[in-house]
Amino acid sequence: MTFDFTIQREKLDQAIGLLQEQDVDLWLTFVRETNMNNDPMLDLILGLNMTWLSAFLLTQSGERIAIVGRYDAQSVTQMGGYDSVIGYDQDIFPVLQEQLTRMNPAQIALNYSENDVAADGLPHGLWRLLNQQLPNFADRFVSAEHLVSSLRGRKSLTEVKRVQQAIHTTETILDNITTYITPQKTALDIYEFSRQEMATRGLVSSWTPCPQVHIGSAVQVGHTVAEAGYTVQVGNLVHMDIGVVENEYVSDIQRVWYIKKPDEAGIPEPLQTHFDLMRKAILAAADALRPGSIGWEVDAAARQVFMDHNIPEYQHAVGHHIGRTVHDGATVLGPRWARYGQTVYGVVEAGNIFTLELGMMLDGFGYIGLEEDVLVTNDGLVWLSTPQTDIWVIE
Amino acid sequence: MTFDFTIQREKLDQAIGLLQEQDVDLWLTFVRETNMNNDPMLDLILGLNMTWLSAFLLTQSGERIAIVGRYDAQSVTQMGGYDSVIGYDQDIFPVLQEQLTRMNPAQIALNYSENDVAADGLPHGLWRLLNQQLPNFADRFVSAEHLVSSLRGRKSLTEVKRVQQAIHTTETILDNITTYITPQKTALDIYEFSRQEMATRGLVSSWTPCPQVHIGSAVQVGHTVAEAGYTVQVGNLVHMDIGVVENEYVSDIQRVWYIKKPDEAGIPEPLQTHFDLMRKAILAAADALRPGSIGWEVDAAARQVFMDHNIPEYQHAVGHHIGRTVHDGATVLGPRWARYGQTVYGVVEAGNIFTLELGMMLDGFGYIGLEEDVLVTNDGLVWLSTPQTDIWVIE
Repeated sequence: MTFDFTIQREKLDQAIGLLQEQDVDLWLTFVRETNMNNDPMLDLILGLNMTWLSAFLLTQSGERIAIVGRYDAQSVTQMGGYDSVIGYDQDIFPVLQEQLTRMNPAQIALNYSENDVAADGLPHGLWRLLNQQLPNFADRFVSAEHLVSSLRGRKSLTEVKRVQQAIHTTETILDNITTYITPQKTALDIYEFSRQEMATRGLVSSWTPCPQVHIGSAVQVGHTVAEAGYTVQVGNLVHMDIGVVENEYVSDIQRVWYIKKPDEAGIPEPLQTHFDLMRKAILAAADALRPGSIGWEVDAAARQVFMDHNIPEYQHAVGHHIGRTVHDGATVLGPRWARYGQTVYGVVEAGNIFTLELGMMLDGFGYIGLEEDVLVTNDGLVWLSTPQTDIWVIE
Repeated sequence: MTFDFTIQREKLDQAIGLLQEQDVDLWLTFVRETNMNNDPMLDLILGLNMTWLSAFLLTQSGERIAIVGRYDAQSVTQMGGYDSVIGYDQDIFPVLQEQLTRMNPAQIALNYSENDVAADGLPHGLWRLLNQQLPNFADRFVSAEHLVSSLRGRKSLTEVKRVQQAIHTTETILDNITTYITPQKTALDIYEFSRQEMATRGLVSSWTPCPQVHIGSAVQVGHTVAEAGYTVQVGNLVHMDIGVVENEYVSDIQRVWYIKKPDEAGIPEPLQTHFDLMRKAILAAADALRPGSIGWEVDAAARQVFMDHNIPEYQHAVGHHIGRTVHDGATVLGPRWARYGQTVYGVVEAGNIFTLELGMMLDGFGYIGLEEDVLVTNDGLVWLSTPQTDIWVIE
């Protein structure tokens, strides 16, 4: 067994920087039996499973302390991200109490959040236990929501590379799918071909069921399973939403094909016009997506293109974080609808990787849907996927 | 994609029965984005991932209600375990409030527990959200610890069959390992052979790193990675701890081999005597393991055999639940040490599947360790593994 902890070490460095930036004295990640109930942050700052009660303390002054069960101490030491690894035999609380007393932090940030699932890894029972066992510190507990959101959202160099690789592989698979799509193939055929393309590379999909395959305009677009009842036909669109997990990081891309009739010179007019509008909306979102933007502002920029042209608005957000998962962080680039809660008021930061996605149903043809993956930097947007700038035509 | 929800439907029936038995009005499992942060109970009562805030309500009167996001409603309906599946678009809380007001339960059991990780699936942030959004019900929230412990611990018929299958496969693999072990093979060789046996069957191990392979008496026994530095030699013991996950359920077995010297007629005397003592201790634990036993009492029965013969006591519990995981529930058959907290005061119930495991290091030979998997019933103990009654000899 070989493990690679490059990302975890990068994230630990980042976490210390964020504690300083946000002026939080100490961040405590507190877990147990993580193979059954994992804190999503542990994957970023440890990359191992823990059995007994375990505490990971990072401080503004740069201390990195792990307090773990005796049998887990060796692997945490080997992982190399913690300056001090304290193995205990009987009871974690005297050790934790001693460390906290020595450091005397003004705030102890814990992983709980009403808004962000990635920052809500502390189970309520463990929160109760902390309050019972550390009564002197209970009034210093604060939410680590803001810290976790930035730590997860600002991708490290290695994280960006991993996402790029997953996107690259997905684009190779999409090339093969383009060759595979011919009239009379069913949506289920295309789904199964795509799954096989993933399986031969030892990969799984970014979500389930994936890919989504939509043929023609009678189909319902969404988290649907591909069905054999829909058949590729000339004069129709094929639309797919696809992503893979590669080396723990994901891609998420939508593409659209047109199946040309034998006698057609080019793409029928309504298709080209509406594709160009979708592309225009994507570019409007991209233009609005920069460090400091608020989530809903980015969505509004793309939505305005739809309204300007009297196209029915897309019923979802224009973008979300991707990284270890396809919804990888708090800030959503979405409209101010109740469903999205506080997530659309989040601030875009350099290092964020977002999807930009939208589409429309064109009666008689099918769904024109686009989804690109982009990296936000202080020097402008980086397109990680190769943007689709024209409908792909199948002769 | 085909899914099998047999176990989830069995567990839902069981849950209604437990609410009646324990006189709890309502059990609420409350989750969101479970592909990132899952409640361990959701696997038992749903078997699907949910995206938006979702509530699963089971009542003593037999109601089974799921309140889930619009896009998840279809899959929950297809799953078939809930009489009422309510899909919402904007906000779950008015719907949840309406259902709770109609049912007016005296207690609302939530998944939090200081002691049992399987019963501690509710994140602290979601607990805060429930209190903020349902202030009229906040004083009715109680811990579902006892309910969850019994629901997870009392295996259904299908769950028992799945564990049996995982054990059967492990025993087949052990037969092949017996053929593979010869002098000069290293612990790493045996580890890699075992992993290959799992991989060719499409299986993964029950824990990581697994199997443990211990050769001779110079080795440290525990959660260690097999190393090439230990070589099989005549006159030594080989000991393994191994388990596989098959169809979502696990096995966990320890076995021991002796590598005979060319001139030996049988097993050297100290080995046979001490193996028999280990076996006697396993049988003592088995004899004490029945519905109504307290966890520590079962451990004490085996530990007494060690003390009676002045053998250094094993430094762990004599048994733990297995099922979906290798530590599959609250009650531990262990000594009353601080490390085990309240878990060793749990009550054994019919339907529980436990390991029975212990061992000792015999200087000059190696580790004699045994681990069997057993099912507790009201009519006596059922041995799910084929017990090892003699040291396996390699000529």
